[in-house]
Amino acid sequence: MQKAKRTYVGLDIGGTNIKSALVCNGTIKKRIKLPTKARTGVKGVLIQIRAAINPFMKEASGIGIGIAGIIDSKKGIVRFSPNLPGWHNVKLANILQKEFNVRVHVLNDVNAFCLGEWQYGAARGYDNVFLFTLGTGVGGAAICEGKPLFGATGFAGEFGHSVIKYNGPACPCGNRGCLERYVGARYIVARAKRKMMKQRSTLNRYEKITPHVIADEARRGDTVAREVFEETGFYVGIGVTNIIALFDPDVIVISGGVSRAGKVLFDAIRKTVKQRVLGARYRRTKIIRGRLGDTAGMLGAVYVASKHK
Amino acid sequence: MQKAKRTYVGLDIGGTNIKSALVCNGTIKKRIKLPTKARTGVKGVLIQIRAAINPFMKEASGIGIGIAGIIDSKKGIVRFSPNLPGWHNVKLANILQKEFNVRVHVLNDVNAFCLGEWQYGAARGYDNVFLFTLGTGVGGAAICEGKPLFGATGFAGEFGHSVIKYNGPACPCGNRGCLERYVGARYIVARAKRKMMKQRSTLNRYEKITPHVIADEARRGDTVAREVFEETGFYVGIGVTNIIALFDPDVIVISGGVSRAGKVLFDAIRKTVKQRVLGARYRRTKIIRGRLGDTAGMLGAVYVASKHK
Repeated sequence: MQKAKRTYVGLDIGGTNIKSALVCNGTIKKRIKLPTKARTGVKGVLIQIRAAINPFMKEASGIGIGIAGIIDSKKGIVRFSPNLPGWHNVKLANILQKEFNVRVHVLNDVNAFCLGEWQYGAARGYDNVFLFTLGTGVGGAAICEGKPLFGATGFAGEFGHSVIKYNGPACPCGNRGCLERYVGARYIVARAKRKMMKQRSTLNRYEKITPHVIADEARRGDTVAREVFEETGFYVGIGVTNIIALFDPDVIVISGGVSRAGKVLFDAIRKTVKQRVLGARYRRTKIIRGRLGDTAGMLGAVYVASKHK
Repeated sequence: MQKAKRTYVGLDIGGTNIKSALVCNGTIKKRIKLPTKARTGVKGVLIQIRAAINPFMKEASGIGIGIAGIIDSKKGIVRFSPNLPGWHNVKLANILQKEFNVRVHVLNDVNAFCLGEWQYGAARGYDNVFLFTLGTGVGGAAICEGKPLFGATGFAGEFGHSVIKYNGPACPCGNRGCLERYVGARYIVARAKRKMMKQRSTLNRYEKITPHVIADEARRGDTVAREVFEETGFYVGIGVTNIIALFDPDVIVISGGVSRAGKVLFDAIRKTVKQRVLGARYRRTKIIRGRLGDTAGMLGAVYVASKHK
C-alpha cells in the first residue's frame, strides 16, 4: 500500500488578498493569489476562500489557514478581524471542514508567520522565538521552550497593543500609548509629513507618501526619512526591550513591509535595546529580518495542519 | 527492593533569610529559616546555604534552589543577584553538587514561586499562567502551554523591568519608566509620604511608613492610603494589560508582601485591565492572589529538582 502523501493547502487571508498554496514537506508546489473582496462580507469572502482552496483539493489531506484578527485557534473561530467587515464569531474551521471533508486549522496570521519562519526560515533550530510584523498594523507571536504560544484563548502575542506609554495617545483599540499607535504604517507616514513641513526633504517629490517610499529615501540618505525611521526604531526598540525582559528569546524576527527600511531601522532598534535591556551583557539575543517573505504564513499554517492530523 | 523515596531539599534564598524545607510529594515535612548574612559575601552565604541543607541531607535525593537575581538556570549559575553583594557568575549548582553528591537545580526565585503555585496552589490545572510578586522589587514568571518559560538564558519573566512609559523616571537598572520604578515598595512609600504632606491621613500616626502599614490603613478607609493603592493598582494594571496582550494567560497570580493590600489594590488592577485590554469581551483572564504564601518558592524549586533527576 502506498503511503499517503503529506500534502496540504495553506492559506494566508489578508484584508486585500488571499494567498493560497499547495505545500508538501515544507515546499510550495503551486500557488495562487485572489482578491479577498472584504467588502462583500462573510458570504462573499467565503466564496473567495473556496476558490482559493478548490484547485488544490484533489491532492490535499488537510487545510491550514492564517487570518488576521482575534482568532480562537483552539476552536477554529474567527472572533473578530479588523480588516474583514462583518466577521464576528465565524466558525471558519467548522464551515470548511464540512464542505471539504478534511481537517481545517485556523490561526492568527502572525502566529502562522512565526511558525513558518521557525520551521523553515530565519528562526530555525531555536527554542525561544518572538516574531513581529511591522506593516499597517503591528502583530506578534512567540515560540516558548519549543512550543508555539497560543494562550488561553488563542490571542497571545498582541505586540502592537502592548503599551509603551500609559498616558500616550489614544489608540483605535480603546487603549492608550500602544506600540502600534507609534509605529503602525499610518503613524509613520504622519510623522514624515509633519517633519516635511519643517525641513527640506526628497520626500517632497512624491505624490503619495508611504512607508515604502520613506524607506527608499532613508536608504538614499534623506535626513527627514532617516529621522522617521530612527524614531520608529526607537519606539520598536522599547517594545523589543519589553519582549526581551518578558520572553528572553534566542532570536527576534522582524517581518512585514516596514522592515524593508533595513539598516537605519535595525540600527535604531538595536541601539535602544542595548541601552535599555536588563542584563544585556549576559544575553546574546539576535534581532534579524524574516527570510521567507510572504510565503511564511502559508507554510506556517500548513505546519500546524500537518501536526494535528 | 524498596523504592527510593522522592524526597528533596527545597531552598528559597533571599537577601535577608534562607528558607529551607524537606519536601516529599509536594508536602513540606520539616522546615527551617536561617539568616542569609548577605554582607559576608559569597563564602559567608555559602556557609549559611550549607547549614540550611545539612539537617535534611540524610533523607534527600536532590536539591532545588530558588534565588533572587539573574540566574542561568540551564547551567545553574547565579549571574548576578541585586541583594547578594559579590555574587557574580557563581556556579552554585556545581559547587553544591560536588559537596552533597546529589543533583542540584538552581532557578530564579520567582520562577520557583510560579512553579509552586502552578503545581500545588492557585494556578493548579492551568496551561497558561503568569505569576508576579509585588514587594521590594517586582518579579515575574510564566507557564506557557503547560511548560515553564525560562527563556534563552533563563531570564524570562522580568515583569518589573518592562517599560510602561518610555520617557518615565530613571530606574536603577539603567532603563526608564520600568514598572518597578512605579510600584516597587520604596516608590509606594515615597508616594504615600508626598500625599501625607498635602492631606490629613491616619498614616501620620506611624513612625515608619511601610507598604504593610499603608495596606492596613487603606483597609481601614484612610483616603491617602487608599489613593496610594489605587494608583499602584493602576500602574500594575498597565503592566498586566501588557502581560495579557502578550501571553494571554488563563490566570494571573499576584503574590508578595504588597499584594496584602487586598481589595483596594485588586479592584484598581481589574478596572484598568477591563478598560485597556484588547478583546476583553472574549477573554476570561482570572486575576487572583497566590495561595501558598512563602512556601511556594521551596515547593517550586523541589518540583524542578524532582523533574530532572
